[in-house]
Amino acid sequence: MNYRVLGRILGLALVTEAALMVPSMLIGLYHGESILGFSTTIGILLIVGMLLLSFKPKDNNIFAREGFLGVSFSWILLSMFGALPFTIEKMIPDYVGAVFEVASGFTTTGASVLTAIEGCPYGLLFWRSFTNWVGGMGVLVFIMAVLPLADDRSMHIMRAEVPGPVVGKLVPKARQSAMILYGIYVVISILEVVFLMAGGMPLYDALVSTFATAGTGGFSVKNASIAGYNSPYAEYVISVFLLLFSINFNLYFFILLKNIKPIFKNEELRWFLGIVAVSVIAVAINIRNMYPAAEETIRKALFQVASIISTAGFSTADFDKWPELSRSILVCLMLIGACAGSTGGGIKISRLLILMKSAKCEVRRMMHPRSVNRVKLDGKTIGDEVLHNTLIFFVLYMFIVAVSTLLVASFDECDFTTNLTAVIACMGNIGPGLGRVGPMGNYSDFSALSKIVLTLDMLIGRLEIFPIIMVFTPETWKKV
Amino acid sequence: MNYRVLGRILGLALVTEAALMVPSMLIGLYHGESILGFSTTIGILLIVGMLLLSFKPKDNNIFAREGFLGVSFSWILLSMFGALPFTIEKMIPDYVGAVFEVASGFTTTGASVLTAIEGCPYGLLFWRSFTNWVGGMGVLVFIMAVLPLADDRSMHIMRAEVPGPVVGKLVPKARQSAMILYGIYVVISILEVVFLMAGGMPLYDALVSTFATAGTGGFSVKNASIAGYNSPYAEYVISVFLLLFSINFNLYFFILLKNIKPIFKNEELRWFLGIVAVSVIAVAINIRNMYPAAEETIRKALFQVASIISTAGFSTADFDKWPELSRSILVCLMLIGACAGSTGGGIKISRLLILMKSAKCEVRRMMHPRSVNRVKLDGKTIGDEVLHNTLIFFVLYMFIVAVSTLLVASFDECDFTTNLTAVIACMGNIGPGLGRVGPMGNYSDFSALSKIVLTLDMLIGRLEIFPIIMVFTPETWKKV
Repeated sequence: MNYRVLGRILGLALVTEAALMVPSMLIGLYHGESILGFSTTIGILLIVGMLLLSFKPKDNNIFAREGFLGVSFSWILLSMFGALPFTIEKMIPDYVGAVFEVASGFTTTGASVLTAIEGCPYGLLFWRSFTNWVGGMGVLVFIMAVLPLADDRSMHIMRAEVPGPVVGKLVPKARQSAMILYGIYVVISILEVVFLMAGGMPLYDALVSTFATAGTGGFSVKNASIAGYNSPYAEYVISVFLLLFSINFNLYFFILLKNIKPIFKNEELRWFLGIVAVSVIAVAINIRNMYPAAEETIRKALFQVASIISTAGFSTADFDKWPELSRSILVCLMLIGACAGSTGGGIKISRLLILMKSAKCEVRRMMHPRSVNRVKLDGKTIGDEVLHNTLIFFVLYMFIVAVSTLLVASFDECDFTTNLTAVIACMGNIGPGLGRVGPMGNYSDFSALSKIVLTLDMLIGRLEIFPIIMVFTPETWKKV
Repeated sequence: MNYRVLGRILGLALVTEAALMVPSMLIGLYHGESILGFSTTIGILLIVGMLLLSFKPKDNNIFAREGFLGVSFSWILLSMFGALPFTIEKMIPDYVGAVFEVASGFTTTGASVLTAIEGCPYGLLFWRSFTNWVGGMGVLVFIMAVLPLADDRSMHIMRAEVPGPVVGKLVPKARQSAMILYGIYVVISILEVVFLMAGGMPLYDALVSTFATAGTGGFSVKNASIAGYNSPYAEYVISVFLLLFSINFNLYFFILLKNIKPIFKNEELRWFLGIVAVSVIAVAINIRNMYPAAEETIRKALFQVASIISTAGFSTADFDKWPELSRSILVCLMLIGACAGSTGGGIKISRLLILMKSAKCEVRRMMHPRSVNRVKLDGKTIGDEVLHNTLIFFVLYMFIVAVSTLLVASFDECDFTTNLTAVIACMGNIGPGLGRVGPMGNYSDFSALSKIVLTLDMLIGRLEIFPIIMVFTPETWKKV
């Protein structure tokens, strides 16, 4: 293990977090709030960060192991330090709860332990929502875009932070890929702010709502989430942007290159839109008796489906009270998740496509043992390594859901539906589940131990399992 | 497709079913019950069976495709014809319900649509329990043991009917392997009858309880299942035999060969016993306040754990009322299931072992991309084909659980826990789930459409997915 390279990655992450905290502190200052929490934390981050950066690595190469571990520990530390302002300012006095909240922010889960959000300090709520935005595209990808990181091996970092079975560099240099990704991210975010403000939403609310939409995080500054704005216009705008942020960002890059063909050929996009359409129709038919007007029924169905499949987890309706079919559809969407290369979570549609196609090939192989079958996506053959990795990913995903549900059941006395959907909603970085963690509920009832399990689930889900698992694999720490 | 070979397999299956119905009819006759149902059905079975057998195949070879389809259609037809006596005698007037009940019997699920079992005719209840016993080891394996089937390619049939990722022939000839398997099965079954009668259970009850234990089916002739006997002795005897029938039968063959070494080396057995021990202890601690004495607590925990992991689904306690941890443990055991090569269902422990080991290898490969890692079970390397097939099996298992839950939710208005555990309990051939299908509930509330979905789930689970999937794959029916 090259501990100095690891230290350097962590140091960069912490100093960056200090910088990212400044806008929130200024907003607090502007509103005349206490900034003790922010200033103390920024101080600690700078000291620890600088200390870590003072060790100069002899060898700047980032290999797979250092890349994965660097990303894992960065995210763990960012959550642990990012939680300090909430505890210092006593907005979330219980530190485990605060770490849960911030990890939920960075991982773009949006699960909350807060029972009343309105009335909390502006600065801290801004920080809470801002973690959604930063976590969406990735903290280290952000650093890569801003700073010249070692060499091109930093691709390992991008691979660990950008979701999906295959990470295609947009351009040969990893740094430029990171810059393009963040560029697209910023532009679409600004568009959303403009659209929301055009509908009469105040700047502050438009900003925090956009942070949560763009990162598909789902934190809101209203107790009733987006329903609190009581604005069908905002509901439609956010629905559309949620879907836009659920799409592979590579496709936007193709638009920039004026190369539209790959977009129409993209199988993942077609399936994504198909699943959204079928789900909206099925849910709308299923809940048709619950709302007075057809427009409202469709709007509620669209918003909730977009919110869950994008894994944002906003809500404008208490879908926990919806009939069983709609509830089950939403749980399935929580597992499915968004497209690879987007800011969304879940298993990802391209993974599920690869899995379905592999299954079809296997059935064919069993019937005709000597036939040759290859899994293709977008016309390209999927290599055996990616295929195998995708299969293992799915198995581990389900194992971790099962084990986490057992752990939560052993620490607390919630019902089966609550436990299972809480775990699924945290792993998939959605936020609300069913039962006591439904859209009108929250995670405050869980004990500290359950919160730790669920926090790990969020990180495991956001970093797509392997990086976090490596932290807990004894072999990782052996000398080669 | 060689339709004549397919017809021959189906013909044999139906004539065999007619023969298997005779003992039940005689018991009905002895008790002075109407035997119209049995006699009519036996007549129909013989006519249709003989008709199918009258087409002589030109080519007796059974290839993979014919083997899989032969097994699938045999099981579907056996369930459809086997249900006739129940409908003719009006014990289950609704035919879909009767097919559900008999498919539940043959697949050794033990899920029932009957609300009151006591008072039903002896002959029909005997037939119901007998399907558990026949289905446990497999109907076509039975035929193979009795009749000289074509050539040694009939191995394909055994592969489709005997559960587990790898079917090892015990001896070079498939037919002799089938005879040995059934021999072991009969001997242990007789042992159980003797033990139960030694505790004072009447012959009829000892027989039907043994059928359900041996096949890990779980049908009982008491409304309260095994709790209806109110006999701690019977509870212990059945617990032990449930575990014995959950073990790979190859291990008993090794005992016959006086070769004890492979038994101690068997990883699946070690894990099986480990999971049972941990589950019993965890459940016992969790339910310690629900029963007056420590002995009763441990007995209830042992029986319920043995009943669920063996996938029999007997009950001596309403585990739906147990605390959440115990309920969740039981749901996990439903998914895990018994050992490969036993009469139990579920995913099977050896499959899960292979999956866990593959995951470990994959993590290692990601850290050290150039290292070579092989998955080994019992010291033997697992081939890539078996590995891949096991991964796909798991993926399909989860997909089918998700789709079935959605379908059941769209046909009926049961709660999430009921729907999900009903599907898991049917796929894993357990029987009772949680909620309305808990040990004190039954499947009578479900609509005909849901019953059809759940019946297919039972068949899919019992035949381990691929054979039934092939029936529904359009490619199967294309000419090569």
